[in-house]
Amino acid sequence: MTAEILAVGTELLLGDILNTNARYLSRELADMGINVYYQTVVGDNRSRLLNAYRTAFSRADIVIATGGLGPTEDDLTKETAAEYFGLKLELHERSWEKINALFKKMHANMTTTNKKQAMMPEGCLILTNDNGTAPGCCIERDGKTLFMLPGPPNECIPMFENSVKPALKPRSGVVLASKTLKICGIGESQAEEMLKDLIDAQTNPTIAPYAKTSEVWFRITASGKDEAEARRLVGPTVDEIRLRLGENIYGEDDDSLEGVIVKLLIEKGLTLSCAESCTGGLLTAKLVDFPGVSAVLLEGAITYSNSAKMTRLGVKPETLEKYGAVSEQTAAEMAKGIAETSGADIGVSATGIAGPDGGGPEKPVGLVYVGLCVKGRIITKALHLTGDRAKVRIRAVVTALDTLRREIIKI
Amino acid sequence: MTAEILAVGTELLLGDILNTNARYLSRELADMGINVYYQTVVGDNRSRLLNAYRTAFSRADIVIATGGLGPTEDDLTKETAAEYFGLKLELHERSWEKINALFKKMHANMTTTNKKQAMMPEGCLILTNDNGTAPGCCIERDGKTLFMLPGPPNECIPMFENSVKPALKPRSGVVLASKTLKICGIGESQAEEMLKDLIDAQTNPTIAPYAKTSEVWFRITASGKDEAEARRLVGPTVDEIRLRLGENIYGEDDDSLEGVIVKLLIEKGLTLSCAESCTGGLLTAKLVDFPGVSAVLLEGAITYSNSAKMTRLGVKPETLEKYGAVSEQTAAEMAKGIAETSGADIGVSATGIAGPDGGGPEKPVGLVYVGLCVKGRIITKALHLTGDRAKVRIRAVVTALDTLRREIIKI
Repeated sequence: MTAEILAVGTELLLGDILNTNARYLSRELADMGINVYYQTVVGDNRSRLLNAYRTAFSRADIVIATGGLGPTEDDLTKETAAEYFGLKLELHERSWEKINALFKKMHANMTTTNKKQAMMPEGCLILTNDNGTAPGCCIERDGKTLFMLPGPPNECIPMFENSVKPALKPRSGVVLASKTLKICGIGESQAEEMLKDLIDAQTNPTIAPYAKTSEVWFRITASGKDEAEARRLVGPTVDEIRLRLGENIYGEDDDSLEGVIVKLLIEKGLTLSCAESCTGGLLTAKLVDFPGVSAVLLEGAITYSNSAKMTRLGVKPETLEKYGAVSEQTAAEMAKGIAETSGADIGVSATGIAGPDGGGPEKPVGLVYVGLCVKGRIITKALHLTGDRAKVRIRAVVTALDTLRREIIKI
Repeated sequence: MTAEILAVGTELLLGDILNTNARYLSRELADMGINVYYQTVVGDNRSRLLNAYRTAFSRADIVIATGGLGPTEDDLTKETAAEYFGLKLELHERSWEKINALFKKMHANMTTTNKKQAMMPEGCLILTNDNGTAPGCCIERDGKTLFMLPGPPNECIPMFENSVKPALKPRSGVVLASKTLKICGIGESQAEEMLKDLIDAQTNPTIAPYAKTSEVWFRITASGKDEAEARRLVGPTVDEIRLRLGENIYGEDDDSLEGVIVKLLIEKGLTLSCAESCTGGLLTAKLVDFPGVSAVLLEGAITYSNSAKMTRLGVKPETLEKYGAVSEQTAAEMAKGIAETSGADIGVSATGIAGPDGGGPEKPVGLVYVGLCVKGRIITKALHLTGDRAKVRIRAVVTALDTLRREIIKI
């Protein structure tokens, strides 16, 4: 069974708003095992909308349209659908009463155009709207099904949940189960190379890669006649990928890198402090994204100036003079300094050249040193990062955190 | 002239990501006076992509495709375009050298699949990518133009700006001029209320509001027969809005709040340090987003624990005991402490409850205190913010920076 999403609204074509409904509906349909091969956006224009219905129904059994159910002349979704299916519009009394009552409640003036919202294609199924004036509807004809939902997400989503999902579920026939494995420390192409034969041979389950900034995710999805079967099918592939990628996998599903680190630190009873230069607070901020962080994080020092590196962290003037602020030696002394002055078990540091200026032939933009001081033991790592200032900084943060994660595992 | 947007990627059809490129491109094309009547999303599938090219070119002169330029077998945008236009793929030596150099710089292992990114349709125009490995390209044939841009927005947007926009501009026929005014410190509805008569009466220029997290932008756009005329039409409306919104406007066009602050500090010869609790480094990190920040920023202290607040910033134990870590008094002492211990002219601080836990009836989630110490003078501000943990933190950062901006202006 295939479905298609058709968002109606000139505001989408002008780029005034993001098409968040398409994302929501796509995800829900995917979870129900219904294939979505196309999403389309079309404006508030009769002939183009008619054309969009034709195109969509030539490719899919089910079309879910959003938007264009409002009271103005621009709102044409129902009218054009009625034309497409050769149906008349007729007043739906119950909807009309409901709209009247709503306006009364809001003490608002109703205009005659509001009646338009209660005019529905003959024989359609009405989908009630508990969050707005526009009812939705569903037309079924010749094996084709058209759902029409309102555009505002706070009306569209509940209507999908309450009316569309229950109608579609019995039809989908399959149940899907999926597991996402999250990888850090190796690139997308390297990870895929390590799984090439699995990816090439995939049928059920499927293996889909997603590249994030300095991360790669693989989603393994299987379909079965029930949830137990689907889950059973996912298992062996997940196990095999785990075996091959090993420690490169930092977590799964809803795990975040910072969450995994905080949980590891709690588990091992360790505290952490951060010393940052080029990352300018982002490293600590990413750890603080995880709500439980206060159990392990003591503090962060953003020692942007050389003077701060010396007074706050005890970096030696000779180190800065001889090797420079961006050096393995400075990164090491920053990590040691923050661990010691804050009394943390672990200190992590980052110092580098984020650009766009400040680079040279020996130390180019993108050169970042990460330092770790784990109970007195020093580890450093030189990174050669690409991208603009923002990319270099976020990549430095993710790599520093991943380096930290790999060291904590060993403790 | 009509253009159509074709986003390629199964991750869009599965609802894993939002189609932000479609919105960006739609808005840019609208600004250039180019009509967009349809947007389409299609998956990483040869026959459906081929079908999508056919449909799009049956309706539009120009198609802008995004995504599917990566190194994996799933990435089919160029390959299928070549098939559609009857072109062969050939190795583009310069792109191949560039990819090699990038991998060398990153000290990363290149796999054979990376060569795929340098295989381009014969005779196409190469669009260089300064932010990733995938070059874009443009095919022009029989009055039809296909631009292919990478999927990641930080690669897609600069490529559109640098290569596509200059190519399309001479074709569009009308000239548009626009100016964006950026507002902080008042909400969208309040700002719109202050400009209601102007917004109601708009024709040429138009006034479009865009709500950002804790910011509102107004874009004033006029069309004219040439640039001088379009600019002349924009001017008076911009002047009138400036007059009405005054200091609530922090900047225009490419200005960022942090950039405006850094420039003001440089101009006035002032230095700054930050002390953060709930924002966890985000405040300093936002300032560090601006490359010139090293001229004015001395350091940041992320004093997450009470002990760090006392030892690093000299917050008094009695203050913490009597008023708590989330209080006007602690915010004041944090700002004073960071200014004094770092030797900065100005100290800025934030302490609050970001949630989801930690709130209570007296101090609910979303309560944040901002502190400023400007050459010894203390200013504090209590914020009552809404949203989840991430939203509360970013709103606290923006409001702290805006409070700082308004104080620096007065000096």
